[in-house]
Amino acid sequence: MSKEKQFVTEITPQGEDFSRWYIDVIKKAELMDYSPVRGCIVFRPDGYEIWEHIKEELDRRFKETGHRNAYFPLFIPESFFQKEKEHVEGFNPELPWVTEAGGELLEERLAIRPTSETMIGHMYSKWIHSYRDLPVLINQWANVVRWEKRTLPFLRTSEFLWQEGHTAHETESEAREETMRMLETYRSFVEDYLAIPVISGEKTPSERFAGAVDTYSIEAMMKDGRAVQAGTSHYLGNKFAVAFDIKFLDRDNQQQFAHTTSWGVSTRLIGSLIMVHGDDRGLVLPPKVAPTQVIMIPIGPPKTRDAVIARVDELYCQLKGAGVRVRVDDRSDMSPGWKFNEYEMRGVPIRLELGPRDMDNGVCVLVSRVSGEKRIVAQADLVSEISRMLEEVHHEMYEKAKSFRADNTHAVDTLDEMKALLEQKRGFVTAGWCGSAACEKQVKEETGATSRNIPFDPAERKANCLCCGEKAEHTVVFARAY
Amino acid sequence: MSKEKQFVTEITPQGEDFSRWYIDVIKKAELMDYSPVRGCIVFRPDGYEIWEHIKEELDRRFKETGHRNAYFPLFIPESFFQKEKEHVEGFNPELPWVTEAGGELLEERLAIRPTSETMIGHMYSKWIHSYRDLPVLINQWANVVRWEKRTLPFLRTSEFLWQEGHTAHETESEAREETMRMLETYRSFVEDYLAIPVISGEKTPSERFAGAVDTYSIEAMMKDGRAVQAGTSHYLGNKFAVAFDIKFLDRDNQQQFAHTTSWGVSTRLIGSLIMVHGDDRGLVLPPKVAPTQVIMIPIGPPKTRDAVIARVDELYCQLKGAGVRVRVDDRSDMSPGWKFNEYEMRGVPIRLELGPRDMDNGVCVLVSRVSGEKRIVAQADLVSEISRMLEEVHHEMYEKAKSFRADNTHAVDTLDEMKALLEQKRGFVTAGWCGSAACEKQVKEETGATSRNIPFDPAERKANCLCCGEKAEHTVVFARAY
Repeated sequence: MSKEKQFVTEITPQGEDFSRWYIDVIKKAELMDYSPVRGCIVFRPDGYEIWEHIKEELDRRFKETGHRNAYFPLFIPESFFQKEKEHVEGFNPELPWVTEAGGELLEERLAIRPTSETMIGHMYSKWIHSYRDLPVLINQWANVVRWEKRTLPFLRTSEFLWQEGHTAHETESEAREETMRMLETYRSFVEDYLAIPVISGEKTPSERFAGAVDTYSIEAMMKDGRAVQAGTSHYLGNKFAVAFDIKFLDRDNQQQFAHTTSWGVSTRLIGSLIMVHGDDRGLVLPPKVAPTQVIMIPIGPPKTRDAVIARVDELYCQLKGAGVRVRVDDRSDMSPGWKFNEYEMRGVPIRLELGPRDMDNGVCVLVSRVSGEKRIVAQADLVSEISRMLEEVHHEMYEKAKSFRADNTHAVDTLDEMKALLEQKRGFVTAGWCGSAACEKQVKEETGATSRNIPFDPAERKANCLCCGEKAEHTVVFARAY
Repeated sequence: MSKEKQFVTEITPQGEDFSRWYIDVIKKAELMDYSPVRGCIVFRPDGYEIWEHIKEELDRRFKETGHRNAYFPLFIPESFFQKEKEHVEGFNPELPWVTEAGGELLEERLAIRPTSETMIGHMYSKWIHSYRDLPVLINQWANVVRWEKRTLPFLRTSEFLWQEGHTAHETESEAREETMRMLETYRSFVEDYLAIPVISGEKTPSERFAGAVDTYSIEAMMKDGRAVQAGTSHYLGNKFAVAFDIKFLDRDNQQQFAHTTSWGVSTRLIGSLIMVHGDDRGLVLPPKVAPTQVIMIPIGPPKTRDAVIARVDELYCQLKGAGVRVRVDDRSDMSPGWKFNEYEMRGVPIRLELGPRDMDNGVCVLVSRVSGEKRIVAQADLVSEISRMLEEVHHEMYEKAKSFRADNTHAVDTLDEMKALLEQKRGFVTAGWCGSAACEKQVKEETGATSRNIPFDPAERKANCLCCGEKAEHTVVFARAY
């Protein structure tokens, strides 16, 4: 009883303090723990397994589009950062430096990679000589480090896990095509797999990756109305090719600089899916990445216990055999009620209950985490019922997140209107923008909201800049962001 | 023509200079490249893909035995290393130190992890409170760094990739059982998957992991007769539990220290499989980890080219559909002869040739990389013929390596005999050993060979120590090692 009470009081409601809700939930569900190193977290098995499912599916999609994995060194010599001016300015403040190794001071300091454009650019210059060597389509799964001032588990940590694609091409159009292909790969993955609706668009110049010609992003809305940049894809033009001398003999036997791209998503996707789907009872995990998709809980009095458990074990084997990630909790020292709460808190998409009466009737009860819907299904159809319900849970989660985003997105005409709105409401604001950095800066200073991106496909186009009133060049999504 | 000539001269024969052969072959086959950071290599796609296949299968086996993955920080505070005396002595000389980050000097230096016993021990002390929390069975896939003085690609690099299992148990016997289970997992994986025969045994005290009570290893023989320690498993006793305060209330409500283990294999497995199987023509890759298992080469005159390629493409789809890693090389600017050499050098297990006459006869030609055997098979049976031949190639490679090891293993009775032997021959030496560190040291000083391990199952037991002549406690395998 004390445990159940403890449970109820341990998670701060979202409406009271969203940040505390987030920390409560990820700690209690054992997704992560703080480490003794500032800003670095431990990914506990349930947190790491979400990443494994993300990784596996993205990796499959990357390979399907012709990419291969490779691995480049963790350390980057200081001189490498000096080669691309904007790049060094963007990353220098966040770098950790190795100055001693093997008992000696190093002649040149080594940065821990914050991203690998420089190292990979250097290697590509050795590998690429002719148009026949192109395109080079390489991805790396790795840890990277950015010494952040303010950190938040999964969303902003000093060390994080990610993938970084780095490609080199003969022509600008091919490289731009690749940039958009990978952005679209991210969009479809995040929507189809994590049930998170996103806005695809181009970043404004002030929000570009350090060293990119153009940066594109997918942006998602968290349940507190703030934005998360869930993935980015960059067209780097010739900038890194010039800095690192990535040249090739083209089809006319002329020396050309290659056109390069880079693109990445990281473990912040884990933070995003928690903040998009979770509720006051805890996590709500998208079925395709949930470590446990179905939790089976035998119920009923002690005298029928053995028979019920025997049947549960049979059904478990059927589900397992069909590739469902299923677990049984048959502990006798915890009540069914405690277990219901526990696995709701852990975000397991489907709970399966089986009691003695269900045994007699050849049925069992399925309960959806996202809607709470109870469904009585024939044991004989269990595998197909579960796979159908997992699909439905995914779609419900996606639609719910999409409605939430629609309800919390507001179009405005002026900065005053935007300020008044954000005093009362959370969420995304769409507005016209003239394209000047000054107007963008003023919006940020007066509202705390930054431009997220220029959507490819805005619901509505505004005629005038919200700030200066001049003709709008773009319609922009603004939001406070993680 | 110049290209073919270039090929022949580019690989140093093994007999001439084995180390140069090794470097020639891994560079030419594009498995790796040197990086601008001392001792760190780049894993190019074909090298990294071998690691991906290793990882995937080992990961499956770890999960099958109840382990889950997690991820711990790259950085380890300096004070952590001080907690276990032997551990700090073992690793301190090899550590790189981060002393500055985010533009400031750090209060406490951070080591880049050389292994994670200390960090994981610290976290386990927070997670383990009761016997109900045990066992904890966690594995980590990660990069680690040891600032080595002499490096060799894959076999000894400053940064390398590995997995490290870390488990905690209620009792010594459970922990010892785990230690042996994982050693056996390594043995069977390395033999069944990489076709490398290994010797399982216990390390002598002087060769133990820094901080272990007992260390066990699997040892493999390279083609130059030297040994590689291909995997290790450690019983750590209570040492790390005491150092990091991993305590639990046992079934009698008494505080106890946990018993811990750790075990790991690394990217040195890639170096090992190259040095075990390669020959003067280049790589010979074990089929189960080869990035390309079958290379298809259309042959014949230009006029039949289109028809042959069309048929090759059909067969390609059949093989691909059956899960075979297959590629087609239909470039018209390279001769079949050049291609034959190229893919032999790259170690592709099976070459498939198809020409116009084969088309008429409904057959194709399969050539085994390891034996050179040519087999004419019906196109209709291609999928089953290929999967049979891949199995056979694996077994041939294993048996070949096993005979090589047998031919190059010698039992001796005295140190003089061993010295005389090693002047003429390469390989492993088995001998009796009294158990004293002094005798072991003398063997090392006078022969350059170290004790590899004490095999569980030696072919022959010697009665007396090769060094002092006293009664032998153990039969030991000695060898010069990488």
